Amino acid sequence: MTTIAQTSIEADPKVPVIRLSRDFEATPEQLFRAHTDPVLFARWVGPDAMTTRIEHWDATSGGSWRYVSVRDGTEYGFHGCFHEVRPDRIVQTFTYDGDPDGVSLATMWFEDLGGGRTRLRSQSLVDSFEARDSWLRSGMEVGVDQGYAKLERMIHDGTV
Amino acid sequence: MTTIAQTSIEADPKVPVIRLSRDFEATPEQLFRAHTDPVLFARWVGPDAMTTRIEHWDATSGGSWRYVSVRDGTEYGFHGCFHEVRPDRIVQTFTYDGDPDGVSLATMWFEDLGGGRTRLRSQSLVDSFEARDSWLRSGMEVGVDQGYAKLERMIHDGTV
Repeated sequence: MTTIAQTSIEADPKVPVIRLSRDFEATPEQLFRAHTDPVLFARWVGPDAMTTRIEHWDATSGGSWRYVSVRDGTEYGFHGCFHEVRPDRIVQTFTYDGDPDGVSLATMWFEDLGGGRTRLRSQSLVDSFEARDSWLRSGMEVGVDQGYAKLERMIHDGTV
Repeated sequence: MTTIAQTSIEADPKVPVIRLSRDFEATPEQLFRAHTDPVLFARWVGPDAMTTRIEHWDATSGGSWRYVSVRDGTEYGFHGCFHEVRPDRIVQTFTYDGDPDGVSLATMWFEDLGGGRTRLRSQSLVDSFEARDSWLRSGMEVGVDQGYAKLERMIHDGTV
């Protein structure tokens, strides 16, 4: 397990899964909103050096999504469908345009810790350890951690 | 690996995946149609003792689906979203209503073997070996094999 700033990142030894966990000073409802409202989501997702443009967003069970992140004029597209969107859990698929045959199944849980705190847990499942480990080697944890730090600032300043 | 009639079924030893394979005397286009046209799909999917009613069906990338299979008056519902629907590959999520938190990521490939024959390969990925093995123990291979036999008859009689 690696802990980068506030986010713990774990590669399961038995199944090709990456797990993340981070506690927020926010209610489950606030974290749910931050993950389903496209305007809010675009403001925090990804590393600091990227800006994100939502191209399609229907955060409901059976809906789908697509966004493009831009760094120094280079565009990186991502898309998937929402299998289930409910207050305590979001399940969605995820593909990066640069690897169009690669698909991961991502699950996110919002666990109420009481006292206005919530643990965000997430899991990404792929079909091989090679694919999982190449994700880990891509430096994804930096973008994840910077994204969550932005989300934290939005919670603190009352935007979410 | 088990081969039930014409369908080979394999549990991967390293990742929680079930793989199926079966060759059909049909073109990739026919198999694609059989998996995307709701009227055709409802006629062949599942074991002989069940009938299937499509409740929602949008077999496009980013669409979603829901059907109910009925045996002796008991209903079994299934639903998911279509991550990608393209002529050679369909990727979708799958949940059985009776296990609402269980989600699998299913991928299907239509491989042209030439001469009007196509290999249908499919893979179901879940996040634990326990979940995978309980699927295998459920007798799913009987329903899968009977379903494919029905599809074969529909191909032979020109319905697909």
